[in-house]
Amino acid sequence: MSKGLTSRNEDYSQWYNELVAKADMAEHSAVRGCMVIKPYGYAIWENMQAALDKMFKDTGHSNAYFPLFIPKSFFSKEASHVEGFATECAVVTHYRLKNDGNGNIIVDEEAKLEEELIVRPTSETIIWNTYKGWIQSYRDLPLLINQWANVVRWEMRTRLFLRTAEFLWQEGHTAHATSQEAIEETERMLEVYADFAENWMAVPVIRGRKTATERFAGALDTYCIEALMQDGKALQAGTSHFLGQNFAKAFDVKFTNKEGKLDYVWATSWGVSTRLIGALIMAHSDDFGLILPPKLAPIQVVIVPIYRSDEELDKISEVANGLVKQLKLKNISVKFDDRDTQRPGFKFAEYEMKGVPVRLAIGGRDLENGTIEIARRDTREKQTISRENLDTYIGNLLTDIQQSIYNKALKFREESTHEVNSYDEFKHILDEKPGFISAHWDGTPETEKQIKEETKATIRCIPLNNKQEQGKCIVTGKPSTQRVLFARAY
Amino acid sequence: MSKGLTSRNEDYSQWYNELVAKADMAEHSAVRGCMVIKPYGYAIWENMQAALDKMFKDTGHSNAYFPLFIPKSFFSKEASHVEGFATECAVVTHYRLKNDGNGNIIVDEEAKLEEELIVRPTSETIIWNTYKGWIQSYRDLPLLINQWANVVRWEMRTRLFLRTAEFLWQEGHTAHATSQEAIEETERMLEVYADFAENWMAVPVIRGRKTATERFAGALDTYCIEALMQDGKALQAGTSHFLGQNFAKAFDVKFTNKEGKLDYVWATSWGVSTRLIGALIMAHSDDFGLILPPKLAPIQVVIVPIYRSDEELDKISEVANGLVKQLKLKNISVKFDDRDTQRPGFKFAEYEMKGVPVRLAIGGRDLENGTIEIARRDTREKQTISRENLDTYIGNLLTDIQQSIYNKALKFREESTHEVNSYDEFKHILDEKPGFISAHWDGTPETEKQIKEETKATIRCIPLNNKQEQGKCIVTGKPSTQRVLFARAY
Repeated sequence: MSKGLTSRNEDYSQWYNELVAKADMAEHSAVRGCMVIKPYGYAIWENMQAALDKMFKDTGHSNAYFPLFIPKSFFSKEASHVEGFATECAVVTHYRLKNDGNGNIIVDEEAKLEEELIVRPTSETIIWNTYKGWIQSYRDLPLLINQWANVVRWEMRTRLFLRTAEFLWQEGHTAHATSQEAIEETERMLEVYADFAENWMAVPVIRGRKTATERFAGALDTYCIEALMQDGKALQAGTSHFLGQNFAKAFDVKFTNKEGKLDYVWATSWGVSTRLIGALIMAHSDDFGLILPPKLAPIQVVIVPIYRSDEELDKISEVANGLVKQLKLKNISVKFDDRDTQRPGFKFAEYEMKGVPVRLAIGGRDLENGTIEIARRDTREKQTISRENLDTYIGNLLTDIQQSIYNKALKFREESTHEVNSYDEFKHILDEKPGFISAHWDGTPETEKQIKEETKATIRCIPLNNKQEQGKCIVTGKPSTQRVLFARAY
Repeated sequence: MSKGLTSRNEDYSQWYNELVAKADMAEHSAVRGCMVIKPYGYAIWENMQAALDKMFKDTGHSNAYFPLFIPKSFFSKEASHVEGFATECAVVTHYRLKNDGNGNIIVDEEAKLEEELIVRPTSETIIWNTYKGWIQSYRDLPLLINQWANVVRWEMRTRLFLRTAEFLWQEGHTAHATSQEAIEETERMLEVYADFAENWMAVPVIRGRKTATERFAGALDTYCIEALMQDGKALQAGTSHFLGQNFAKAFDVKFTNKEGKLDYVWATSWGVSTRLIGALIMAHSDDFGLILPPKLAPIQVVIVPIYRSDEELDKISEVANGLVKQLKLKNISVKFDDRDTQRPGFKFAEYEMKGVPVRLAIGGRDLENGTIEIARRDTREKQTISRENLDTYIGNLLTDIQQSIYNKALKFREESTHEVNSYDEFKHILDEKPGFISAHWDGTPETEKQIKEETKATIRCIPLNNKQEQGKCIVTGKPSTQRVLFARAY
């Protein structure tokens, strides 16, 4: 905590890396591309999990657990799926080590697997192979299952939370009797993600659909939520896929419908990951450290005593412990930091770095006056107020902070979203005022690719309920019926 | 649900396998040795996790997450550790697949890892390598961390929940300034496990220490809780290890103590796994299916309507929905099963199979009389009672069932524990009245091994607070100062 952060203006990427380290959230492990999620970072993930898990259950889903390993032959059954993931798969080939006789531990070549196992990068294949045994009739549908798990996608260039070889996520896998029901489920779960992003993470998101190029490998349609980071780059925060009958056909999963006829089952899958923690950091935080929305903060309120003697600390502790009790009764998570090994200034900086939404400080004068100093992390405003009805005051303040953070991010996104009508303007805005660019596109993968290669901007999504309007593609001039959303992205 | 189970007397092992399948808890996957945990089985695991997680946090621990993969060189650093796990390791050797040009997906030999990665069978090595960066001074201690994760130990003979290649567990890894503190932690967590087994799972356990032969690979001392299953076989339900300075030395983790001197850090680790679900099943269930302790049951109360007309169902539903509300207010998890696709008898059998602790049935006569039929799963007793104050009645009944199940298991264990004083008697009891056998042993691994080879019984533990008494080893006749607990075990 001794030194501050590189400022965002100076070097956004460096600022992010330092913040993740100094807020004690995660670090690179000795295993290439894999991260260690430290207790403070993991506590945020636990809060995210709890909120999402409840939302999944409230929409009728149950959790289950499927194997970490996928036989190579399963993995290969859906052609576009394997094509999408083949180049980033960790492969298990042996199941035993041995001592080579010279004290070295080596792989036992006699324990070679007949068929290699892939460490799951996603579980559609192993799950649909399992569903084959679970689904016979329309009575078995819909099947609404979610899994919390680790997955591995071998990445060459990694970044804590944003892109790591191993990450934690949830993956929903549902089975339906009709295409319509599956599409409804795909859209329902997108809305759950959007709700979570906006009302828990305080991150406004655009709901949209991916272009064919950007679809999940094996999906007929990929829906997504896209968020804007403070550096004007977009971040895909969650995806929900309509898989059609692709996996049902690959794994021969048929059911008898109400009319007694056999048909392939319709599928969806949807997921969010520890990447959301990266989004949370980059959407809100400032040059003093993390800014957390109160609803996801592991510690919502911290109390720091300011004292000159043990006797004074005793008196302050009595008040503080009373406050702790009061706040806990209101389900506010609170910590009284009475460590005598650190000075108040150090503690202030530490809790700023960790994004604790509300900081209370009590000193000798506050004892006399019945007051307390209260500082909110988002605006860094401080005031001294009466301790009367402090629990109600703090409850309201936390609600206010949650809303303010969201409003600020929304305002930033609105100011950083530009309609452009020419490719020149597109390139200019991209460099000068980075953010979302709304522009006409001719709908071809060729133009999409050209733009990506020339500008590093991608089509983030075709927004849902998009306004239909006549226009011309900014690159080719061909006719277009709607604007799509471009940005450079994480 | 069409057919019942093989009885426990007829074939205990078959009974177990059928029960796991028919209660919809888990199944073998297409991946050798790996299981699929189905939603009903997983819901029990979630309840176990929630209770344990709270106990860990109440004793000062935080959760974190460490990599799935362990570099082979790390794994080899603690000699006895690698020796213990080398023969059951899944090894990742490549990080990419490719198309061979003929449409086959094969491992890309150009993507061979320089150093093989082990899929974690347990995480001491990767965690202690990480702790090296976290611990400098006594101020950084104790470090109290837990991880919820999947682990892989390649098993040739697998059994759902009891022994699978991949399983879910938690592993606590703590670091301390003194040997004494580490031992206290080891014992504290053993007591947490015992508390959970007895007060949540309703399974009485013996707290004890393993012999040197049965210790965790790398531990100085392994504490365990041992439970007795209905077939008289023991099951190790949890272990807590005092690791001394072994891992600190292997990974060079030193700290500056209060006197300013450098010393190696002291360690513990402790874990329980999805194996507990196997223990839960085998400790309580009967020939009609699962019997679950109410505190871990995903559904505590089910309401089944018995009706002859839609009109009657409407009236019953009104009463049932009122009851659902009432019970939910008391935090009782309740399901009203108004499916019209199944008859009441089918539903009764299904909920018996799934071990729902309390079943309510309402028919036309109950509507008139203000009554309800209530059946408890553990004793299968039924009675018709007034619906007045039913929520209080059921709350008390659930408490009673929780206690009764425990008492029954305790009585069984007491009746199945025998003191023997000769090897003949030992062998006779082992075959005729299987259970725990308390006998004198000379303390040598040789005698322990001989007994194991000749009888398949192992020393389950040396009970904590064991009575000290003079005696003679049942095999060698050598002097012994205490009895130890033997059994055949899972």
